Amino acid sequence: MTASLEPLLNPRSIALIGASSNPGRIGGMPLELLTRFGYAGGIYPVNPKYQEVFGRRCWPDIESVPQAVDLAVLAIAAAEVTPMLRRCHAKGVRAAIVYAAGFAEAGGDGIRLQDELEAFVAESGMAVAGPNCMGFANLNTQAHTAFASVFKTAPAQDGPGTVSLLTQSGNVCAAVYAIARRLGLPFSHFINTGNEACLDFSQYLEYLAADPRTEIVLGYIEQLRDGERFVRACRELERQGKLLIALKAGTTDKGAQAVQSHTSALAGDRRVYAAAFRQLNVIEATDFAQMAHLASLATLRHRTAGKRVAVLTMSGALGAILADKFIGAGLDLPDLPPELQAVLRGGIPDYGMVGNPVDVTGNVVNDPAFVRTVLQALATTDAIDAVVVYAPGYMLDRMADALADVSRQHRRLFIAIDTGAAQSRDALREAEVAVFEDLGLAVAALAPYLLWCEARAARRQAPAPRLDAAPAPTLPCNETDARAYVAAFGLPQARAAAARSADDAVRDARLAGYPVALKILSPDIAHKTEAGGVALNLADDEAVRRAHAQVTEAAARAQPDARIDGVMVQKMERGVAELIVGATRDPVFGPVLTVGLGGVLTEIYQDTSHRLLPVDEDIALQMLRELKAFALLDGYRGKPRGDLAAACRSIVAVGNALLAAPAHVAEIEVNPLLIKEAGQGVAVLDALILPATP
Amino acid sequence: MTASLEPLLNPRSIALIGASSNPGRIGGMPLELLTRFGYAGGIYPVNPKYQEVFGRRCWPDIESVPQAVDLAVLAIAAAEVTPMLRRCHAKGVRAAIVYAAGFAEAGGDGIRLQDELEAFVAESGMAVAGPNCMGFANLNTQAHTAFASVFKTAPAQDGPGTVSLLTQSGNVCAAVYAIARRLGLPFSHFINTGNEACLDFSQYLEYLAADPRTEIVLGYIEQLRDGERFVRACRELERQGKLLIALKAGTTDKGAQAVQSHTSALAGDRRVYAAAFRQLNVIEATDFAQMAHLASLATLRHRTAGKRVAVLTMSGALGAILADKFIGAGLDLPDLPPELQAVLRGGIPDYGMVGNPVDVTGNVVNDPAFVRTVLQALATTDAIDAVVVYAPGYMLDRMADALADVSRQHRRLFIAIDTGAAQSRDALREAEVAVFEDLGLAVAALAPYLLWCEARAARRQAPAPRLDAAPAPTLPCNETDARAYVAAFGLPQARAAAARSADDAVRDARLAGYPVALKILSPDIAHKTEAGGVALNLADDEAVRRAHAQVTEAAARAQPDARIDGVMVQKMERGVAELIVGATRDPVFGPVLTVGLGGVLTEIYQDTSHRLLPVDEDIALQMLRELKAFALLDGYRGKPRGDLAAACRSIVAVGNALLAAPAHVAEIEVNPLLIKEAGQGVAVLDALILPATP
Repeated sequence: MTASLEPLLNPRSIALIGASSNPGRIGGMPLELLTRFGYAGGIYPVNPKYQEVFGRRCWPDIESVPQAVDLAVLAIAAAEVTPMLRRCHAKGVRAAIVYAAGFAEAGGDGIRLQDELEAFVAESGMAVAGPNCMGFANLNTQAHTAFASVFKTAPAQDGPGTVSLLTQSGNVCAAVYAIARRLGLPFSHFINTGNEACLDFSQYLEYLAADPRTEIVLGYIEQLRDGERFVRACRELERQGKLLIALKAGTTDKGAQAVQSHTSALAGDRRVYAAAFRQLNVIEATDFAQMAHLASLATLRHRTAGKRVAVLTMSGALGAILADKFIGAGLDLPDLPPELQAVLRGGIPDYGMVGNPVDVTGNVVNDPAFVRTVLQALATTDAIDAVVVYAPGYMLDRMADALADVSRQHRRLFIAIDTGAAQSRDALREAEVAVFEDLGLAVAALAPYLLWCEARAARRQAPAPRLDAAPAPTLPCNETDARAYVAAFGLPQARAAAARSADDAVRDARLAGYPVALKILSPDIAHKTEAGGVALNLADDEAVRRAHAQVTEAAARAQPDARIDGVMVQKMERGVAELIVGATRDPVFGPVLTVGLGGVLTEIYQDTSHRLLPVDEDIALQMLRELKAFALLDGYRGKPRGDLAAACRSIVAVGNALLAAPAHVAEIEVNPLLIKEAGQGVAVLDALILPATP
Repeated sequence: MTASLEPLLNPRSIALIGASSNPGRIGGMPLELLTRFGYAGGIYPVNPKYQEVFGRRCWPDIESVPQAVDLAVLAIAAAEVTPMLRRCHAKGVRAAIVYAAGFAEAGGDGIRLQDELEAFVAESGMAVAGPNCMGFANLNTQAHTAFASVFKTAPAQDGPGTVSLLTQSGNVCAAVYAIARRLGLPFSHFINTGNEACLDFSQYLEYLAADPRTEIVLGYIEQLRDGERFVRACRELERQGKLLIALKAGTTDKGAQAVQSHTSALAGDRRVYAAAFRQLNVIEATDFAQMAHLASLATLRHRTAGKRVAVLTMSGALGAILADKFIGAGLDLPDLPPELQAVLRGGIPDYGMVGNPVDVTGNVVNDPAFVRTVLQALATTDAIDAVVVYAPGYMLDRMADALADVSRQHRRLFIAIDTGAAQSRDALREAEVAVFEDLGLAVAALAPYLLWCEARAARRQAPAPRLDAAPAPTLPCNETDARAYVAAFGLPQARAAAARSADDAVRDARLAGYPVALKILSPDIAHKTEAGGVALNLADDEAVRRAHAQVTEAAARAQPDARIDGVMVQKMERGVAELIVGATRDPVFGPVLTVGLGGVLTEIYQDTSHRLLPVDEDIALQMLRELKAFALLDGYRGKPRGDLAAACRSIVAVGNALLAAPAHVAEIEVNPLLIKEAGQGVAVLDALILPATP
């Protein structure tokens, strides 16, 4: 399938149907660009109204074009599109770009038109981009098929490019291109996908993964229509050593709403996207300039880097501000090792600083030999991963030679920040030093980039688990059945028994030992606490009897139609902490795992970690470590540590339980999972299996 | 005292001691700047080595200068400074700037030199700036006394200025000046305070509050040496309708460490600074470019604005991205009212959006009359506070006339974001539209500015409370005494009794009713739980006896020297939530109040609110509303609401309890304060009073 994008993205000849001689019109602009930038393939304007446009013969119809045409660009109205595609197909045209709006995004008649278009494409096998798209540009062959004035206003590119733009919005495409060109990034492809009626984002991404020119892809995503294919394309990019930097819109409700109206597509869940991006080697961007700077940094990804940053300045104040910003963005500024500090102290006066930030002071800037010593030391110490030099204007110029030389001699990433107007910027870039002129932008780009570098070493894909077949429960099922199912995957259960009557409950409670908890048992009541179906800390027989009556009545009141299977009697157990571990099916990415600390505050503070499934125990531990509340599991304030190994095994097991389940199982949740002291294991205190809503 | 800064900041004549004819040296650069920019006052170079510098007569010593000198600038070594100041003083010089480093910041001998300097100033009453400072510039009179090359490299200013820079770092001064000048901001004063041996940040701030030219102050703070004076200066600025925009370094531990080595000053606590800034009408900045843009926005502060933003674009994607960023930064994008949406729908096609963001679509941009209608509607609706137009390049140009006109006709703040290269930027700025060329910077500046505008209406200073004198407890005191003290300020107590023996404890428990809690009672044990001195949920006599033995032994083991006064027996009470309310004395700002949800997670999630004292009940409610966990007090998921009114009264009372206490009381903490259901009040479950460490 990927091969068929070749005539779209690397056409040998192009027909423009609805050609115009006005470069301001959509039928004229691509012709002007093709001419201006010297596209070497065949160019065939088609319009019965003209004999000639842009000095080229204009053909009355596609049928009269004398040569074979790879790609037809349709600058005609929506209603005329599918009939014209039929004619193009008959003529042997292999691919087409549809500019016209007025399809699915417009609702009403447009939906019918898009259905018609899709049916024709399915039947014909033609590669059709859009509709409602701005077109493409191949900057290596100058095959311009986009009505985008940005190619005229942005600095022109000479020579081949390695960065490709792939976006679901023409405006975003143009905005990012302009900024990236001002930074001097050289482009390979410019692709706006439009409505994606026939070709979706992931297919273009596959093409770029295979494109020998493309090294870095800048993506803008509103909605992925084929999550599975996207995952495969990302893995292929990674295999090729290429990198996707992606901005996902709709990360808040309002953003999602705007996207929804825009493309008639629901935005996926922000946190799942973010987790998927991390797992798939994708750097998540948040705005256009930052995106371009991330691409610029990524051209240096052969250099070693990570989140431990050394900051070198000639001012304690600048160092302090940068330290605040870097640490706030999640980077580390470790103290330099004592022997290195001793070297630095050899040339830095007392009022300078040698820890990190390093303040060499304004005087030392004038001593190039010592600056070189300092930079050499920072280039070779194991204590850090990357070096940031913050020196405005002439201060940077004075250090530039040493910085450039050291950057050339070592593989470590060096970054210069100049909020002045240093003359040495180009020379530094030549030596593979990343240069930033704005502090905020530097931090906004460096933080995700360095965290990506950090994760690069640790990133792993969990092997496909061996899923021992457990008989899937009949749904809806009650807690007993849910526990039995997850137990089959190795999840240890807290001692609990089902009781049909108050007397049974008392008997169970005595067997378990007081205090106990009582919970309503029903396949129809998912939220037991909200239904008044839970009583905790029951100290004696009398309390159990009272609670039995209470929870039964409350449940009956809350959900009169629910089938009641009795109550669960469970010994109250104590541990270090309680987790919620849930596996769900994401509409885009499929099975996804969520881990958080149990309880209401986790929701309020949104302290959760997510992964595409499967996960293994190492990934499970990464997930726990991502939680702010991890401290509670890890011996907080002298309290005992939790049994992390057992917790990780259980987290993996919940994921496997969903992977092994048939499609009608939508969600499996263990909440709470009690984490006991290290060595004492964990226990499922409650489990829930939800069916897919029909 | 403020009057005496006049010769420093607005001198009628300047002597430069240590004059040089080399404009690259500190003794030459100010002379070159004074000459270049045409300072009209007297200029007296002093150096026995020269007859003439920069075409001016050079005097061999200060004594030989024939006229009166307002200000001496000392470009001489540290050891010579105080002797020279004596001679200047004898000559009648009123003020001096000391460039030299090598004072307190260098340690050792430098500390002695600074002590000597301070002693001389105290004796003479001379106004002495620095040492270790870069000097000043009065851009209205061109009195340049700074060795700062930025005045030569940054765009020169013609005409008077209203923005003043006041920083504790010369490098920051220069960096911000350069960026702000590139934005075209006109300056009044450029002030670098240096070591602040004699004149501190707050004194300069007082001067600027009184300076008739200065409207906006850009401040960089590492450490405030006189918090009380700073508070007064800020209040005076606010009274004058002026605004301080301040960047505080040292907001993380690393930042703080860099500051500490830099100025031998401890950084204050970041959260207290942030709270104080908000209370004092100060906008907190986080980097240099953002600071300059905040100043630019602040020149439009006569316009109405707030956090409810309408976003207008010609692209759903751009709208979505902006919505994500604005909402992520704490702004609101409310849906527009239906009648307004109807007006917009009159001209916006179906595939555009009328909610908010408004996507007028690319076509509508070409219809200036309708664009005007839309902007008029957004300028007048009560549903929003500010309007952001995001349109790159020529798209903005096409809307520019309408935007400029509407901005001129209305007082509402309009903001344009152009990530292209619009021609209309200057015309828009002329019409008081704020223009940004970078998305990240736009959000970084707009969010704090619009939140400041929002708070502007609601900001209030609590009236000084009437503090009913309660006899201060003798410290250290135990929980009984602490409770008694705070009770005197109106804090309701949970039922609790002190017991000397296990039998007494059982008697108290029966009186209170089971279950009860038992806590060790000691003036010496502040952290009872950590000492094993607390037992909760005791259900019967036997449990109380066991617990009595337990807590007594554990406390004795944990703190063998502690005086034990018995135990507290307290009925277990339940409520909606528990708060921690603590009043402490901040080393910079004095009495400060902290409120958070009780429990270990508050610390992990850092979910607290802070205020300088006094506070009243309205401010207490603001504090509660600032907590992410406020939802729990406010009827979370159908649970009962907490008694907010009683909670607020108690928060005020804790603050008053500290304000009324003598200085040896360092801290008063109520933790937990139990919040019961609305109408049922609150109860102090524990209280602690800590003495100042000697």
